[in-house]
Amino acid sequence: VNEFELIEKLTRSLPTNKSVVTGSGDDCAVLDLGLPDKLLLFKTDAVVEGVHFKSSAPPEKIGHKALARCLSDIASMAGTPTAALITIALPKTFDAGFIEGIYSGISALARKHDVAIAGGETTTNPERILISVSMIGLAPRGKVALRSGAEAGDAIFVTGELGGSLANRHLEFEPRLAEGRWLAEHFPIHAMIDVSDGLAGDLRHILKASRAGAELLTTAIPISRTAKLASRAESSAKPPLLAALTDGEDFELLFTVAAKHAVPLLDAWKIQFPKLKLTCIGKITDREGITLRDKTGARPFIAHGYEHFSK
Amino acid sequence: VNEFELIEKLTRSLPTNKSVVTGSGDDCAVLDLGLPDKLLLFKTDAVVEGVHFKSSAPPEKIGHKALARCLSDIASMAGTPTAALITIALPKTFDAGFIEGIYSGISALARKHDVAIAGGETTTNPERILISVSMIGLAPRGKVALRSGAEAGDAIFVTGELGGSLANRHLEFEPRLAEGRWLAEHFPIHAMIDVSDGLAGDLRHILKASRAGAELLTTAIPISRTAKLASRAESSAKPPLLAALTDGEDFELLFTVAAKHAVPLLDAWKIQFPKLKLTCIGKITDREGITLRDKTGARPFIAHGYEHFSK
Repeated sequence: VNEFELIEKLTRSLPTNKSVVTGSGDDCAVLDLGLPDKLLLFKTDAVVEGVHFKSSAPPEKIGHKALARCLSDIASMAGTPTAALITIALPKTFDAGFIEGIYSGISALARKHDVAIAGGETTTNPERILISVSMIGLAPRGKVALRSGAEAGDAIFVTGELGGSLANRHLEFEPRLAEGRWLAEHFPIHAMIDVSDGLAGDLRHILKASRAGAELLTTAIPISRTAKLASRAESSAKPPLLAALTDGEDFELLFTVAAKHAVPLLDAWKIQFPKLKLTCIGKITDREGITLRDKTGARPFIAHGYEHFSK
Repeated sequence: VNEFELIEKLTRSLPTNKSVVTGSGDDCAVLDLGLPDKLLLFKTDAVVEGVHFKSSAPPEKIGHKALARCLSDIASMAGTPTAALITIALPKTFDAGFIEGIYSGISALARKHDVAIAGGETTTNPERILISVSMIGLAPRGKVALRSGAEAGDAIFVTGELGGSLANRHLEFEPRLAEGRWLAEHFPIHAMIDVSDGLAGDLRHILKASRAGAELLTTAIPISRTAKLASRAESSAKPPLLAALTDGEDFELLFTVAAKHAVPLLDAWKIQFPKLKLTCIGKITDREGITLRDKTGARPFIAHGYEHFSK
């Protein structure tokens, strides 16, 4: 039983109630608390020493990453974050300065996005630091971007460049909050997710929820300079395209819109976000799975994205 | 630097925003999202294998405890829980049946209190299981019971019996949700907290937040049968009164009301909750600290409640 199989089994019959619009299986839970024009987003995400960050990483960057991961999930639902709670589990002997550094990284990013750090707790985890962030946010009713709305014929877009994030970017990335909100406000986004498990892995999450397939143009996939350089420097490194498809923790936005909106969206994006690349990488199909198309033809893509437990 | 000193240092200058009514320093964060008659409660609480439960504990009870701790905090604010997210951090090799047992305990308690389990995540913690529960709830605007409202002259009440919870009860306790709501609905509760750090420790949290002191009548403090028996069976065990004052994890409600409401409240309680003891254990004073009074006179009580890091 791997992580994903376990989650699927555990989440099959969870208790629900009338407040739940979308439970497990999307980037955030979506709850209806009776606010006339808004839905509540609710998310939790943890980072663990030695798993999601090295012990030698600067504490400010660890804090930044811990908060930014949750913010990225709020962004992928086109939401605005409101408040977070920080749970930090520590060995009995801890370096108070290091913990203050983590909080300093959290606080700096929270201030930037007007997120309140409304409390939390410290507890004991004898062998390593674990930081769990819980977050609530709000999204306009009727404009929450789920994973489940992709339709055959949709254009698939991704922000930024992919691959090689674990070299550095995973500790420094900026959650695409303004971008996610702007997209849902100006275009009828069919499905959206943030790329945390790798492009292929997260696209599969959309395809599964939407019961659809996808065809990607290999030449269109935006590959990061880091992934390209790594491949040149080490013969054992992943080929750059594979890195872009399967490396985790890019934290870019992956979304689909009806094909007729593709060109107007690209044009409007360039004016709104001139510094951030947006690329159309393919289209949603009604055939299961991901197909890669290049000048030699089309072939199915099988390799999976990042899975925590199998690494 | 112990846990409490670290928290105090970290929480001194956390980012806030206009949604925050009460940030860190109470049982739950209180947020105003613009609902006309309600405020949002937001809480996170973690249990760790070998710290909060033994590896040999039945998984259903571990799940029960993990959720019940958060529910107890919602209860202590006179709130109603809405939804929870479950983060479970696991060693790479895990017993899927054990994890399902934990979820089964969580789900049973959630159903009982109509709480949705709206998602969560699994992640890796190589050495031990850690379960972090995030919860949101709602409380009537104007009736949220904080720690900070105790006034000199108030009567101090506690539900149930105290001490010896770690022998068994900490895995089975029932969060006092109906009781917390009923109290705030029918009486002007000045301050309330759930007893998780021990009666003395949690009373000190109220006193610190309210800038007040307390005088307790030693003969009035309701001591559990478990604490009494433990003391008789083992000469090295804490005296029963000390156990009731300092053992952790009772998860009873501790609250204060103006003295004039004490008798009507006790009378109404007996009709409403005939099976659950409610005891007036003393009064709030304007002298700092806790004083214990018995037939021989009054003396200050110095011993602290449960502290995670110093045990």
